[in-house]
Amino acid sequence: MVKKDFVDTTDFTKEELMEMLELGILIKRNIKAGFPLDVLYHKSLGMIFEQSSTRTRVSFETAMTQLGGHAQYLAPGQIQLGGHETLSDTAKVLSRLVDILMARVIKHDSIMELAKESSVPVINGMSDYNHPTQELGDIITIYEHLPEGKTLENIKVVFVGDATQVCASLMMMITKMGGYFVHYGPKGFQLNEKHIKIAEENCRVSGGKFLITEDEEEALKDADFIYTDVWYGLYESELSYDERMKIFFPKYQVNMDMIKKASPNVKFMHCLPASREEEVTSEVLDSEYSIAFDEAENRLTAMRALLVYFMDKKDETKLICLKNLKEN
Amino acid sequence: MVKKDFVDTTDFTKEELMEMLELGILIKRNIKAGFPLDVLYHKSLGMIFEQSSTRTRVSFETAMTQLGGHAQYLAPGQIQLGGHETLSDTAKVLSRLVDILMARVIKHDSIMELAKESSVPVINGMSDYNHPTQELGDIITIYEHLPEGKTLENIKVVFVGDATQVCASLMMMITKMGGYFVHYGPKGFQLNEKHIKIAEENCRVSGGKFLITEDEEEALKDADFIYTDVWYGLYESELSYDERMKIFFPKYQVNMDMIKKASPNVKFMHCLPASREEEVTSEVLDSEYSIAFDEAENRLTAMRALLVYFMDKKDETKLICLKNLKEN
Amino acid sequence: MVKKDFVDTTDFTKEELMEMLELGILIKRNIKAGFPLDVLYHKSLGMIFEQSSTRTRVSFETAMTQLGGHAQYLAPGQIQLGGHETLSDTAKVLSRLVDILMARVIKHDSIMELAKESSVPVINGMSDYNHPTQELGDIITIYEHLPEGKTLENIKVVFVGDATQVCASLMMMITKMGGYFVHYGPKGFQLNEKHIKIAEENCRVSGGKFLITEDEEEALKDADFIYTDVWYGLYESELSYDERMKIFFPKYQVNMDMIKKASPNVKFMHCLPASREEEVTSEVLDSEYSIAFDEAENRLTAMRALLVYFMDKKDETKLICLKNLKEN
Repeated sequence: MVKKDFVDTTDFTKEELMEMLELGILIKRNIKAGFPLDVLYHKSLGMIFEQSSTRTRVSFETAMTQLGGHAQYLAPGQIQLGGHETLSDTAKVLSRLVDILMARVIKHDSIMELAKESSVPVINGMSDYNHPTQELGDIITIYEHLPEGKTLENIKVVFVGDATQVCASLMMMITKMGGYFVHYGPKGFQLNEKHIKIAEENCRVSGGKFLITEDEEEALKDADFIYTDVWYGLYESELSYDERMKIFFPKYQVNMDMIKKASPNVKFMHCLPASREEEVTSEVLDSEYSIAFDEAENRLTAMRALLVYFMDKKDETKLICLKNLKEN
Repeated sequence: MVKKDFVDTTDFTKEELMEMLELGILIKRNIKAGFPLDVLYHKSLGMIFEQSSTRTRVSFETAMTQLGGHAQYLAPGQIQLGGHETLSDTAKVLSRLVDILMARVIKHDSIMELAKESSVPVINGMSDYNHPTQELGDIITIYEHLPEGKTLENIKVVFVGDATQVCASLMMMITKMGGYFVHYGPKGFQLNEKHIKIAEENCRVSGGKFLITEDEEEALKDADFIYTDVWYGLYESELSYDERMKIFFPKYQVNMDMIKKASPNVKFMHCLPASREEEVTSEVLDSEYSIAFDEAENRLTAMRALLVYFMDKKDETKLICLKNLKEN
Repeated sequence: MVKKDFVDTTDFTKEELMEMLELGILIKRNIKAGFPLDVLYHKSLGMIFEQSSTRTRVSFETAMTQLGGHAQYLAPGQIQLGGHETLSDTAKVLSRLVDILMARVIKHDSIMELAKESSVPVINGMSDYNHPTQELGDIITIYEHLPEGKTLENIKVVFVGDATQVCASLMMMITKMGGYFVHYGPKGFQLNEKHIKIAEENCRVSGGKFLITEDEEEALKDADFIYTDVWYGLYESELSYDERMKIFFPKYQVNMDMIKKASPNVKFMHCLPASREEEVTSEVLDSEYSIAFDEAENRLTAMRALLVYFMDKKDETKLICLKNLKEN
């Protein structure tokens, strides 16, 4: 039985998330091999954006096209959640007019209410609390770049800098899978009590570990993946350049010195967009350590998997892909 | 011979409108039964919006996708009717680049000129005068919810409140079909002389009846359908909350007391969005009397029918649907 | 070997451009004959617009639909080249998420950098320097309306008025093909030294000719095509109505008097939008001399050819079209 919505990965078991990951990789191989898929033929995705976005919007729209369907872009201002109409009424109406919805919302409450009131599946395209489609793309990227001999259960993943929703999401996914997650960031900008509870519960089930620290040595030792995100924060509470530099620079900038303190095979990740020479140097972002652009491509890998999974087409899709690839 | 444009239902006979209604219901059944339709394969709809819209835009875009084509959204500001270029030139150019056009316009004159100057079909997606795609969706909804033993020719449909373009359109459709239409609204906000002329002419042909009144008893007695719309009016002449409450509240609010004065099987309709606790109470909108969300879904039913009809694919589409449904 | 990008026609030989022209005409005939094409099935075009556009956007979007793919419209403000993210990073990310890109940019440097940094093909949808998709559509239009007995190598094409990027582009195409290009415009608003160098080099290779002049007689004598564009100029340096009338009116207005000074079979062209009674009279634009609306339609002809050509599907597409049209 597939759950209706993808709002928060804590609603899912490791096995369910692994199925999404594997589905994503299978569809990616099928499409790279040139086999068309039409499992969402003539289906419509409604995309609600309360904040604009490039990666999330473009990857959803390309994903729908590649699956035979169509994505409708409802830009900021074109549809207002809770404006002239209650969010609940909007959810009910859109459920009659499209087959599946995604939304990038300002407040996490909005995506929860949208999911609750919609009769069609709802995918969270980022809120002020989490970013689960990024999580799935990231774990796929990590899976594709696992150090030799390692598994998702024994890697060390270090997020450096501000506890953005991407940081929180990465923690949720890594601890869910049983890995070792570290947030290396300054006090006042670290994951909070609520996050720690989720991490603890995830680790209890998965056998994973987590650490929140300001100690560089401890954070970076043997790190398999170093991840960072911009320092300017979110929306109206955006930090000025001077403020953020004072808080994070130079200690939390990912540069070649930091890379050298990690595992020799460490990989660098970034959800992008990046502010070069702030949270990461160009030397790192453009280096052989960087897998940030593979990671960007896996936003698309994740979207295809999620659309197929929540439209309840996963079994059919697997069969088609395996047959195309002659692996059944 | 199919007329080129769908600008005003008064341009069409009852028989033509009934054919659109039946086409809509047939395509709806075909799609609900899971049969894909590709009758508009690779066709492009240009959607011009001088005012933003959720329902009209999303239902047109989903309809084109379901029929194998694609809808292009030209948002307010992205294309300006009569800006740098004359409306006539825009119409001529777009006629060369897309297969069919729809427009939501501020002034009814604009949609009339667009239709006149375009060589491709033009559908009116609402003007300050009428809202014919809403009309068609509404008559389909009424048809699907006819009281037992009744037909479109002997129902009583009451519009409560402000004489919006939705009120005018409902009048045009009900009187065209031969039913009994009532506008129950305050003087100064009632259908005008021009509307009355149309109602008289429609009734002369169809045998229908109409009434404009402030008398609640007379209006609601034996009503089969009660319909309302927002009180804030249109565009720059929007009424403030205080103004509209003073004019319409509480007399013209659709609440359970009003519902009880109608036929026991009365259905409640609303074009949405609704301002809950203004023109309608949540108690009514969320009650078993309400068919407002079925009505929203039938925007899509109407759009599919209109696109197929005006792209001159109705006969082909009927054959395909009947064959799919094994009814030929 | 197909070059990766279409940024500037000076990068291409006459033979390559002729192949695009012929491809455009072949696909046009195929589509007018009702044969669907799916050579870009499930492919995605990312359309970046730093300035809004009707013709370019709609023709690209329709072209992708007709070829089985989908175009994503990234409106001004929705994506910012060189904003939060470097243009180079945006190019790299989008290259992972779509199959081909087009951009209308404010500065020509932006389209050059986008092409350089993208791994997918990039098409220039107009910059402040040139407008090569317009060029291709225009040469197709000219080819379809060649005077009897004439070829692209011996026509005379006169651009009247301001040396816009459309004027520059027309010069590049006509001199590339070996024709005679005249810019008839006032000093200060004529093609510049850089343009002249390109014209000279093109003519050296092709045997074409060019002239820049204020002399009406010399300009218009035996002209086969008269072309004009608006006088208000570009973007923030837009001229006021009074300024432009003082500079260009009445000498450079295309009216019936001017038409009579050209070849008796002269055709009038305009990239549109037109400011009627400024650079052209309605009498001319709506006359039998005018092919401006055929020209608008050929934007679509050009886009289809370019998408197929740069997605490296030209040979496959030719075979399909020729087979459909039973001409192989």
